[in-house]
Amino acid sequence: MLIEPHLAPRPANHSPLTPLGLLDHAVEAFPTRPAVAWRDRTWTYGEFASLVARFAGFLRSRGVKPGDVVSIVATNRPEMLAAHYAVPMLGAVLNAINTRLDPDTVGYILEHAQSVMLILDPACSICPEIAGSVPAFMLGNSDEGLNCLDLLSESDTVDSLDHRAFVTDEWQPICLNYTSGTTGRPKGVVYHHRGAYLNALGNVLALGLTHRTVYLWALPMFHCNGWCHTWAITAAGGLHVCLDRIDPALIFAAIERHQITHLSCAPVVLYMLLNHPDRPAANPARRITVATGGASPTTALIEGMDALGFDLIHLYGLTESYGPATLCNLDDDVAMADAKTKASILARQGVPHVMASRVRVVDDNGKDVAADRMAMGEILLAGNTLMAGYYRDQEATEKAFAGGWFHTGDLAVRHPDGAIEIKDRSKDIIISGGENISSLEIESVLHRHPAVLLAAVVAAPDPKWGEVPCAFIELKSGQQAAAKELLAFCRERLAGFKVPKRFVFRELPKTATGKIQKFVLREEAR
Amino acid sequence: MLIEPHLAPRPANHSPLTPLGLLDHAVEAFPTRPAVAWRDRTWTYGEFASLVARFAGFLRSRGVKPGDVVSIVATNRPEMLAAHYAVPMLGAVLNAINTRLDPDTVGYILEHAQSVMLILDPACSICPEIAGSVPAFMLGNSDEGLNCLDLLSESDTVDSLDHRAFVTDEWQPICLNYTSGTTGRPKGVVYHHRGAYLNALGNVLALGLTHRTVYLWALPMFHCNGWCHTWAITAAGGLHVCLDRIDPALIFAAIERHQITHLSCAPVVLYMLLNHPDRPAANPARRITVATGGASPTTALIEGMDALGFDLIHLYGLTESYGPATLCNLDDDVAMADAKTKASILARQGVPHVMASRVRVVDDNGKDVAADRMAMGEILLAGNTLMAGYYRDQEATEKAFAGGWFHTGDLAVRHPDGAIEIKDRSKDIIISGGENISSLEIESVLHRHPAVLLAAVVAAPDPKWGEVPCAFIELKSGQQAAAKELLAFCRERLAGFKVPKRFVFRELPKTATGKIQKFVLREEAR
Repeated sequence: MLIEPHLAPRPANHSPLTPLGLLDHAVEAFPTRPAVAWRDRTWTYGEFASLVARFAGFLRSRGVKPGDVVSIVATNRPEMLAAHYAVPMLGAVLNAINTRLDPDTVGYILEHAQSVMLILDPACSICPEIAGSVPAFMLGNSDEGLNCLDLLSESDTVDSLDHRAFVTDEWQPICLNYTSGTTGRPKGVVYHHRGAYLNALGNVLALGLTHRTVYLWALPMFHCNGWCHTWAITAAGGLHVCLDRIDPALIFAAIERHQITHLSCAPVVLYMLLNHPDRPAANPARRITVATGGASPTTALIEGMDALGFDLIHLYGLTESYGPATLCNLDDDVAMADAKTKASILARQGVPHVMASRVRVVDDNGKDVAADRMAMGEILLAGNTLMAGYYRDQEATEKAFAGGWFHTGDLAVRHPDGAIEIKDRSKDIIISGGENISSLEIESVLHRHPAVLLAAVVAAPDPKWGEVPCAFIELKSGQQAAAKELLAFCRERLAGFKVPKRFVFRELPKTATGKIQKFVLREEAR
Repeated sequence: MLIEPHLAPRPANHSPLTPLGLLDHAVEAFPTRPAVAWRDRTWTYGEFASLVARFAGFLRSRGVKPGDVVSIVATNRPEMLAAHYAVPMLGAVLNAINTRLDPDTVGYILEHAQSVMLILDPACSICPEIAGSVPAFMLGNSDEGLNCLDLLSESDTVDSLDHRAFVTDEWQPICLNYTSGTTGRPKGVVYHHRGAYLNALGNVLALGLTHRTVYLWALPMFHCNGWCHTWAITAAGGLHVCLDRIDPALIFAAIERHQITHLSCAPVVLYMLLNHPDRPAANPARRITVATGGASPTTALIEGMDALGFDLIHLYGLTESYGPATLCNLDDDVAMADAKTKASILARQGVPHVMASRVRVVDDNGKDVAADRMAMGEILLAGNTLMAGYYRDQEATEKAFAGGWFHTGDLAVRHPDGAIEIKDRSKDIIISGGENISSLEIESVLHRHPAVLLAAVVAAPDPKWGEVPCAFIELKSGQQAAAKELLAFCRERLAGFKVPKRFVFRELPKTATGKIQKFVLREEAR
């Protein structure tokens, strides 16, 4: 075929892929459909677009320019959702900060990100002082702050901005998300418009989102932009139900009131629901799809959630992969299987969603491991839903992308059907007397004990063995279990060298997203 | 934010968007799921990928190189589907030719496309001679031809080719589709990998395709690559049920045998189903989604199809937009409405699907018309799912894309809710005594007459009025209606100047995809 200049891309047939186009589409295709519900109010997609336009107008009036980083510390309020459109609409970059971080880390992020503005939710405890020289604005304060929920007066009408003037390249940064940082300072992960668009649509397909979807925001939006669901629900034309506090009673009430069809959250939230004294009986006419990740759902969790009317989807991903990269759900043919069979399937991280990265599991020599569910290797990812890189950290970026693949640091096996199953984080492997011990394996045994709510196993230094496993246990409220009992429980189920040498009973330290902070426990074990 | 070189795209985080990746994903995620059914055979996704690899191996062994155009004239056989992967996999360009074209036009296309190879289906009447100097191969002939359905011997195993070596730019051409050409020679529409990928996934979302989808190939794959469903069904992980002859009895049998959930076709096929003497009663437990386009579904069609268990989706698009660009379906809130209300909604072409083009309706001055369902204008499209341009025709390309939008030549109004509704093709407008008459309006009146199967109205030259409407009528078999009766029927329902001055009863000439060839009728009217 001839290569002809008139066949090159032009504005009529090539426009940057951006999640902002998803809101445009919603406004054009279904302006009167409900978009956002919060407390006692609801906004249609048309109204939500106006809210976004007012937010963008505010930012512009305060001097935000293309390329600027705008930071926000907020709960799952409508303005937090709106920020995911209003900030990038100006060509600026959204930096959503974990609401539970200490002021020192927030200060570090603001400085590292070279943020030009900080938007604060009055419900978050971070005081405006931490902003230092960064101008800070409080949400919902109509005097000096940012009130975009309401149309204050006729003259307040803001002309809708056309993001096409500011987003001219789909590789432009859209978000800057700092990793939770288990050791050292957090790294700034740069998301681009193309990746955010593709991962949002991949989520729509993976979770089966449609215009009938009613999505409960039980996952913080600051966590990988709510796994890109901030854009995915809009793409599907579903309803975002905002929840600004994670409380089992509020979750159950919202499910009933809004007839929730989908939610995503960390497993710790599911344990909270399961162990809540006032949990309602399941409505047999309704099933709710729950996407969860970070730890494999246990048999007990699957059984309990099933009885409550929840169907689990197990997702795997990292901040660097825009959240969900692979998923595992139960196929129709195992829908009737027992909870143990379901758990053994759902324990796996599964396969990439259709728009996600390709996945490999490779050994130390970079060779793909056999798909025999035995050979362990590191998970590598490549494709269109991976970060541009780490901001102001070329060295870490090159290391992460060495050899043309992103190195996750997670260790997995591959099943004959192609599904991956994580066995451990590289750094969570305990090396005892030259043997590799998977802390995850020990934890999954401990989770089977009826009194154990959460278990975390880390390496403790040992003069003889180098390292030995040390178990930290959080018991269910009202439950008792002595170290001796747990030791016997483990001995029955684990090889001798894998049995923890020490048991510590305490509430486990968690990140804002429910991940256990093993680095704190490692310190303690030392 | 700083612009840092290490944040630029690299192979780990940027790979060309291509529908070929959808088959890779299928093989990785669900290799044992059924992919293709044809006659008495079924292939899993793993087996279909092998079939594709054998096809690609054949092409390569015959010297097909990146950039070459490979033509195919075939029914909806598995090899035709496989060609949609095997040809682009080599970086070559698929040119699927309408099976009902005359040898002269096929010869023109082969020459204009500079085709290097012609693949023929023995079921198609085009003789190999027309290929002239182009090497031609017959499908299913194991001696000299192309047999990729079967693994002939162990040594026949073909290493899977990695399309990443050949498809390095998502703007590379993937297909070359010739328009049906109502006047003059057909134009060669160039599809690129990016657009094909995005439109395929947009179709998945628009039609609600999932891994439970069982899709009946009642639409020819040579028509806009089966509206990109050749890739969409694979993206969803559904089952392609190939049907190599469009016959109502075969369609009904396939629906029953394979438990079809979705099909697409021209309205003329639906009329065939509706008027078939042996149509089965609907199974109340099963609804089938039918996507149709090209003509608005009438009240009678909707009522009849509803009784047969079919739910209609009305699509609109052109060869230049990879098939479907906008769609209209019935929202939940009108599911219980009467057929007349449904018809008035489904008469509209609706709104763009989520990954499709933006749409405008503009007047002669290029201004958007009011969304008042009255003001008529031309439909313009822009976005990521439009052709690269016309092959070897810069002039037509520049004209089509003038002003940064693609000009469809279709005239529509816009409804207050944003939906578009086509009133006519620019060239189908009849100008009589200075008044514009929509041939579509007259046709829709005629379609309401119980004896009329199909009606087509064109302009006939008239010494007094310039042009007058002339109606061509195909009656339902066994039905009678005199011109006088139809004249009275129209007089009751149309303004006097819109009433056809002449009625001609005959079978209407149609393209292979069921579109009425008005240019033949215009000739006749002259």
